[in-house]
Amino acid sequence: MDEARRAKTVDELAALVGGCVVGDRTVLINRVNSVASAAEGDITYVEDEKYFEAASTSRASCVIAPVGANVKAPCRIEVAKPKLAFALIAEVLHPPKRPEPSIHPTAVIAASADVALTAFIGPHVCIGEHSGVGVSTQIHAGASIGDSVTIGSDCVIHPSVVIYDNVSIGDRVILHAGVVIGADGFGYVRDEQGYHKFPQVGTVVIEDDVELGANTCVDRAALGRTRIGRGTKIDNMVHVGHNCDIGERVVIAAQTGISGSVIIEDDCVIGGQVGFGDHIRVQSGAIIGSKAGILPGKIVRPGVWWGIPIQPLDEYKRLNAHISRLPHVRQELKELTERVRMLENELRQNEE
Amino acid sequence: MDEARRAKTVDELAALVGGCVVGDRTVLINRVNSVASAAEGDITYVEDEKYFEAASTSRASCVIAPVGANVKAPCRIEVAKPKLAFALIAEVLHPPKRPEPSIHPTAVIAASADVALTAFIGPHVCIGEHSGVGVSTQIHAGASIGDSVTIGSDCVIHPSVVIYDNVSIGDRVILHAGVVIGADGFGYVRDEQGYHKFPQVGTVVIEDDVELGANTCVDRAALGRTRIGRGTKIDNMVHVGHNCDIGERVVIAAQTGISGSVIIEDDCVIGGQVGFGDHIRVQSGAIIGSKAGILPGKIVRPGVWWGIPIQPLDEYKRLNAHISRLPHVRQELKELTERVRMLENELRQNEE
Amino acid sequence: MDEARRAKTVDELAALVGGCVVGDRTVLINRVNSVASAAEGDITYVEDEKYFEAASTSRASCVIAPVGANVKAPCRIEVAKPKLAFALIAEVLHPPKRPEPSIHPTAVIAASADVALTAFIGPHVCIGEHSGVGVSTQIHAGASIGDSVTIGSDCVIHPSVVIYDNVSIGDRVILHAGVVIGADGFGYVRDEQGYHKFPQVGTVVIEDDVELGANTCVDRAALGRTRIGRGTKIDNMVHVGHNCDIGERVVIAAQTGISGSVIIEDDCVIGGQVGFGDHIRVQSGAIIGSKAGILPGKIVRPGVWWGIPIQPLDEYKRLNAHISRLPHVRQELKELTERVRMLENELRQNEE
Repeated sequence: MDEARRAKTVDELAALVGGCVVGDRTVLINRVNSVASAAEGDITYVEDEKYFEAASTSRASCVIAPVGANVKAPCRIEVAKPKLAFALIAEVLHPPKRPEPSIHPTAVIAASADVALTAFIGPHVCIGEHSGVGVSTQIHAGASIGDSVTIGSDCVIHPSVVIYDNVSIGDRVILHAGVVIGADGFGYVRDEQGYHKFPQVGTVVIEDDVELGANTCVDRAALGRTRIGRGTKIDNMVHVGHNCDIGERVVIAAQTGISGSVIIEDDCVIGGQVGFGDHIRVQSGAIIGSKAGILPGKIVRPGVWWGIPIQPLDEYKRLNAHISRLPHVRQELKELTERVRMLENELRQNEE
Repeated sequence: MDEARRAKTVDELAALVGGCVVGDRTVLINRVNSVASAAEGDITYVEDEKYFEAASTSRASCVIAPVGANVKAPCRIEVAKPKLAFALIAEVLHPPKRPEPSIHPTAVIAASADVALTAFIGPHVCIGEHSGVGVSTQIHAGASIGDSVTIGSDCVIHPSVVIYDNVSIGDRVILHAGVVIGADGFGYVRDEQGYHKFPQVGTVVIEDDVELGANTCVDRAALGRTRIGRGTKIDNMVHVGHNCDIGERVVIAAQTGISGSVIIEDDCVIGGQVGFGDHIRVQSGAIIGSKAGILPGKIVRPGVWWGIPIQPLDEYKRLNAHISRLPHVRQELKELTERVRMLENELRQNEE
Repeated sequence: MDEARRAKTVDELAALVGGCVVGDRTVLINRVNSVASAAEGDITYVEDEKYFEAASTSRASCVIAPVGANVKAPCRIEVAKPKLAFALIAEVLHPPKRPEPSIHPTAVIAASADVALTAFIGPHVCIGEHSGVGVSTQIHAGASIGDSVTIGSDCVIHPSVVIYDNVSIGDRVILHAGVVIGADGFGYVRDEQGYHKFPQVGTVVIEDDVELGANTCVDRAALGRTRIGRGTKIDNMVHVGHNCDIGERVVIAAQTGISGSVIIEDDCVIGGQVGFGDHIRVQSGAIIGSKAGILPGKIVRPGVWWGIPIQPLDEYKRLNAHISRLPHVRQELKELTERVRMLENELRQNEE
């Protein structure tokens, strides 16, 4: 029933992505699937030439393929960017669950909080004083929203998310389970007795269309604000320190750690397990490989970077090649030393 | 009273592990302990010869020791594998807490969910539509179980665990606090405006006897499933990306990150803080050292691996030795250059 | 109203930190701020000479500056350590929120638990049998406290924190959201069938004035205890394995992982994403740089350490310089080889 309701014809799906149908345009599609696992009623896609043959014999009812590609599936949608078309079609065939607007009776919502009538507030959710929840936003079981927090419309806040006081969240933001936003930044001043907390009285701003992976943490600014820019996507267990300014459409893979006051400009791509010292500026368009390490204060120019500490990828590769030839270098040096020794002997004999 | 109830004689414990008693077999034991801290009523173990002397003078009431070992404790159980025997005896002396079957009145359980009568459901737990909880399974405070989730029997789901929709969990699975299973994988397709979500409509299968450490995350497959095989043990804060297939009896230490579509075959051992690029295959029996980094698409053969990017441990060590001799190489080169210069001078003088 | 209530005169603030006022001592201050963002009513600080000029023209109502520094702001507090004074003043101007003592009706507290009358227990909190909560301690929404847990006075336990059974927490401890204390350590014994759990029946002791960052995990000892010493500060997503003994006033940055039975003595400073093998001892005063890796069993002496595996910082830098000169070394070697070849030819010709 559910499946039937969202089924679409190949024609409808082609129209959605501006594609060209080859074959029977009335075929009904109700699911996206991979080339290998697809069955009747499924749509799949192929973009890379090396999978054209597999796609040609897929049991999918329809294959999205590049325009003019040598893909022989009997029913196809041809488009310029098959993977993108597949993603857009998936949004239609598998729309995210939209629970009915409601506030669960076990939720604890402050009297001064302002929750939109169309919001969904799950069991055991907690919303503090003067906080606001926008239209059609979902807050799932056990999430805890502090005081004076603003959450926009169409957000999905998954279970056990914690948002501290005074944080601002835009529209269409997705926070996966266990995300923590606005915990104190890590800053202390030492005296003879030990450490005093440096004030952590700033805030966090998460802009529209941001997605944060499970258990990711974004710390509150010491003074001022920590910002995650519009359309930025961050994977699981990433650490964003106090006062960072992450731009728009930045992608950061899992377990990367970003120290305080780092600026990452728009459209950067950061691998997993990267480590940033504080006060780094990554310029727009830079790509940093996984496991890289960047020293505090550095300016990272556009281009591809790699290694600890980071270097341009080309240099990194060249140096790595040199390192792997080290045994050879030592052998050459040894042989050359022997030749010099023989020359010395010879000269000495000549002189005698 | 509690302690008394579970006390066992040395005889009973020896029988349990197929060991041989030397000394008084009627001594009562009620606790496992270390060689150094043990007191009356405690049992301890020794396996490594260098601790035989310490074990000989331990105040433990009984020492588990290798067969025929030179351990002089007056009461001993001799077995082939003392550490294993110690672990098995600990299971009996310190059985995990088994709360009485019950459903806490603050738990929110969907009408269509099927919870076994012998299950324990703690306070503020949430269980979604069409989900099932098996016999004797415990779900502790604040855990959140989505819709259409299957959980087997004898599982322990610790507080604040989050399981998204459609995930399947086997029998005797232990999920520590803060574990997140089934959050969306990290996949996007870029167009001019920014990033579109690649469909994350697959599922996660956690097989029998798996244990996942605190705050570990296992992502949902894009299409198909992410799998953690039977008997696999994963430490804290490990990231398992979408569509990974982790085999049986794999061990993965803390903070390791595994990108999408990685296959780790049975019986592999992975250190902590290791980083995997996507589409890697680790063949059965491979051992990967802590902090290693593995490039996307690589096939890792059986053996011991180390470094960034990984190399066989022997090669890694050899190359590291070469690197540490670099200052020496440059010195040699300098000296040799001087000798060549002198030869050249000499020859020139001879010619004059 | 709130702001007005905590406003202080420059005179009062100067007295608090033992500073000397230059300018109008009756000016009212109600907020700390950065040099750049400060406005009327704000106090800021400057310590580094390169910001003296900026501080001189800041719109802050008062600037904390080093004694006798060339800072021309009309109202100043001069002290020996401006940053420390700023932190102490912030504690007064921005005291942490103190919710009224209360137990939320949705909290589930065991009959045998002992909660101080002045404690704050938030919504959906769970406290187990025989646990104790000290004077003025706050436990926020959805935190889960096991059985026989002791929590001291003036602690702040943020939302979704999980504390397992038998853990002991000192006074003035701050645990940020998602912290997990006392989950089982990662230890197994293998036999033919697979892995048996090594007993994890020890405990965890968190001493006074400790602060743990969001989603950090401290594992229970196998036998004995895991300890975090007085005044130690740990950042987000740090893993502390079973039986670790972390001393007093230690600082550990985000995402560092510490294997079992590691000892870190008092006053060490550990960077982010550092990895520790098991059974390491770090001696008091050692400083370990971010992303370093330390092999099991190592003793780390006082000093600054860096790299994988760690080396003294000086050696690390020297070796890195050598590595970066590798292309040059190979060029030199090539040239020298050519010179030797020419010498050989020459000699041969001479001989003919």
